[in-house]
Amino acid sequence: MTADTITAADIRINARWLIPIEPSGVVLEHQAVIIQGTRIAAVLSVADADRKFRTRETIDLPHHVVMPGLINMHGHAAMALFRGMADDLPLMTWLNDHIWPAEGRFISEQFIADGTQLAMAEMLRTGTTTFSDMYFFPEIAAQAAHDCGMRAQICFPLLDFPTAWGSGPEEYLNKGEALIGAWRGNDYIMPAIGPHAPYTVSDGPLSEAVALSERTGARIQIHLHETEFEVAEALDKQGQRPAERLARLGVLGARTQCVHMTQISDSDIALLADTGTHVIHCPESNLKLASGLCPAHKLMEHGINLAIGTDGAASNNDLDLFGEIRTAAMVAKVVANDAAALSAHEALKMATLNGAQALGRDNELGSLVAGKLADIIAVDLGDPFIQPVYDPASHLVYSNHGRAVTHSWINGVPQVQDGKLTRIDVPDLMLRVEGWARQIRQQQAD
Amino acid sequence: MTADTITAADIRINARWLIPIEPSGVVLEHQAVIIQGTRIAAVLSVADADRKFRTRETIDLPHHVVMPGLINMHGHAAMALFRGMADDLPLMTWLNDHIWPAEGRFISEQFIADGTQLAMAEMLRTGTTTFSDMYFFPEIAAQAAHDCGMRAQICFPLLDFPTAWGSGPEEYLNKGEALIGAWRGNDYIMPAIGPHAPYTVSDGPLSEAVALSERTGARIQIHLHETEFEVAEALDKQGQRPAERLARLGVLGARTQCVHMTQISDSDIALLADTGTHVIHCPESNLKLASGLCPAHKLMEHGINLAIGTDGAASNNDLDLFGEIRTAAMVAKVVANDAAALSAHEALKMATLNGAQALGRDNELGSLVAGKLADIIAVDLGDPFIQPVYDPASHLVYSNHGRAVTHSWINGVPQVQDGKLTRIDVPDLMLRVEGWARQIRQQQAD
Repeated sequence: MTADTITAADIRINARWLIPIEPSGVVLEHQAVIIQGTRIAAVLSVADADRKFRTRETIDLPHHVVMPGLINMHGHAAMALFRGMADDLPLMTWLNDHIWPAEGRFISEQFIADGTQLAMAEMLRTGTTTFSDMYFFPEIAAQAAHDCGMRAQICFPLLDFPTAWGSGPEEYLNKGEALIGAWRGNDYIMPAIGPHAPYTVSDGPLSEAVALSERTGARIQIHLHETEFEVAEALDKQGQRPAERLARLGVLGARTQCVHMTQISDSDIALLADTGTHVIHCPESNLKLASGLCPAHKLMEHGINLAIGTDGAASNNDLDLFGEIRTAAMVAKVVANDAAALSAHEALKMATLNGAQALGRDNELGSLVAGKLADIIAVDLGDPFIQPVYDPASHLVYSNHGRAVTHSWINGVPQVQDGKLTRIDVPDLMLRVEGWARQIRQQQAD
Repeated sequence: MTADTITAADIRINARWLIPIEPSGVVLEHQAVIIQGTRIAAVLSVADADRKFRTRETIDLPHHVVMPGLINMHGHAAMALFRGMADDLPLMTWLNDHIWPAEGRFISEQFIADGTQLAMAEMLRTGTTTFSDMYFFPEIAAQAAHDCGMRAQICFPLLDFPTAWGSGPEEYLNKGEALIGAWRGNDYIMPAIGPHAPYTVSDGPLSEAVALSERTGARIQIHLHETEFEVAEALDKQGQRPAERLARLGVLGARTQCVHMTQISDSDIALLADTGTHVIHCPESNLKLASGLCPAHKLMEHGINLAIGTDGAASNNDLDLFGEIRTAAMVAKVVANDAAALSAHEALKMATLNGAQALGRDNELGSLVAGKLADIIAVDLGDPFIQPVYDPASHLVYSNHGRAVTHSWINGVPQVQDGKLTRIDVPDLMLRVEGWARQIRQQQAD
């Protein structure tokens, strides 16, 4: 019998349960995750870890599930400052009378910095380690995410009309290309192209977005087939369904993420599947705005990669991805008329590895596998009010909420410890948030 | 100027916000609720309370909404011990291969006592003060609720076939009538009649249930139109929709609560409306078991009283009524194709006053009005990760979870204080729960 070689490493996490996502559908018990630098060095039994590793820090999580950090694939982070400002309203009333006037009055670099930090605080607290953002002043959001140490896909906005961020498509594309250049190769920030929707971007700018994506490898994220009205209007005005038009322009493809897809025909599904386009499912926003029901199970059966997002806090009204996972799993069953559709394990994969795949980074994110980046969360299932625990995967999806997250690491760096954020000064953030809220309340009262 | 008369009372709650439910649709600020004995003595401004009352105890809740306790109108409490035991399965596989074998093996008086206490602990922690139960050994559940000081409608089961609780309809009805007699006039326990469903109870026992209800005033609660299969089978076998058959037998009426109603025709709606029958909506169970979508908004438009329930934890998988309220409000919008359907205030009323109305106790429960029983909860909206707060009603429904409940009182007695239960020994309960869970895991492994 020979002694094992003992390897030094940084952090060891001892987990009661481990859901690695790869291999899929399994819950392992009494496992250790070893972190060395920014990466996962090993995932192995506690007994093997004792023999093989010596770490400078060991964290015991005796009632917890350890799993990959969640990937929230669609949102408008800074809109957290508009959370619950106006609800229970038809979409156009909500936009015309509330959201657009508030945006017109308040959007600025400081608003984006504070609002993005508010959103990141909530996302970190509830288990998200990577998020996708699509909003004004993307360079400010990118800097905020980088400063905080969160991974983020930052989609610069592209529309036919002027906004606080630019005069029109030409300026958006120029600024966007600069954003892509500034962050290329960065480990945290993934700059991307965010044409708002088929009905707000003409063929010319969409074609330029495709060319920019081909030149730089940047992802494209676009709202698509969100409402029945959108599809009917396109058929009326352009004689084509929006997805057909995007296919014609070369927008669909493996670098493109289509958000919502509640109104979807068999030909739409074939287009998405044939082009390898990703779909981002935002079930709570779709319910709350009465947009429709995305046939999640059917899309997955056709081999389409389905990831998940919360959408902005103004239309949800929170950024707790565990809540969104639960809603997705429940709603998928009734839409498919099959209680077995979108199982707990499939729902967890949707919020981790499928998101990584949509980002083109499934080689280094989305599962707990040696060599991948150390984006890891722990969820405490010891809470007395959700006992007993038979299947931790079921618990995470159907009996859980994001506040049960106790720990997270991004790139090996602790972000949440015992439920406390390590990198955001929450009391200071609250002062700034209350300052904005006072102004917004005043405007509403005017 | 004359001095006010100062009245002595027991408890004063100072609330940042107060949602009284009556009058409907309002959020009041800086209000005090005065409790004297078991009842609400007054709801008034803090300034008026200073002048008019002197209380032995004052509780300041500076970041909280104070509102009536929630009423969870449908569940199978002791099934909390089966929470998450089997998920993502078709209904009949779930019942035949998992739930019924487990019930056959484990249901006993002690199982019901422990399981009901587990469910009550979770319900109290998340803001429920009154619940409805339908399960075996109802006399044990009634005693458990009474011992804990929770208000409960306890429906004794009535089926055509034998169970652990009895040999058949005659014994169920005899035992049930004894239960009604034992608790008649009790302030906490409302004994009721629980015919399981149209497909498990023949005409004879249903007619006897109606007669028993007429003799005693006891409510009837029945699962109805839960699945498409149920309705199709009834049409096939009896040539009538289940609701028509119940109407013919006299089951529908103002003392009857029909649970689920996901498969519903215009004639069903007319029957419910004409007879004043109450509907109990369980949206998460309906989604998760792929049963269907209850047209909540349409029922309310037809003047039908719609209350809400979680169903059992085995099919949900939690008893947090705030989560259920949120799901109900979101799903109602997409079903109605109207983002204004089932507003936040309507959803809160559904979970309070509408429940009280279904119980026939809206004269003393379900709203914060002087003279009503003091069933009150407080929800902390100060959590940094859901800021800012513009509309507390929106927050309660769309950005909240039950763990934000910090205080509750039932009949003027504190049940939750600073998030801790006062009347249940949680560590001791956990030992008993883990004992059952060990046995159940062992049976699953066999």
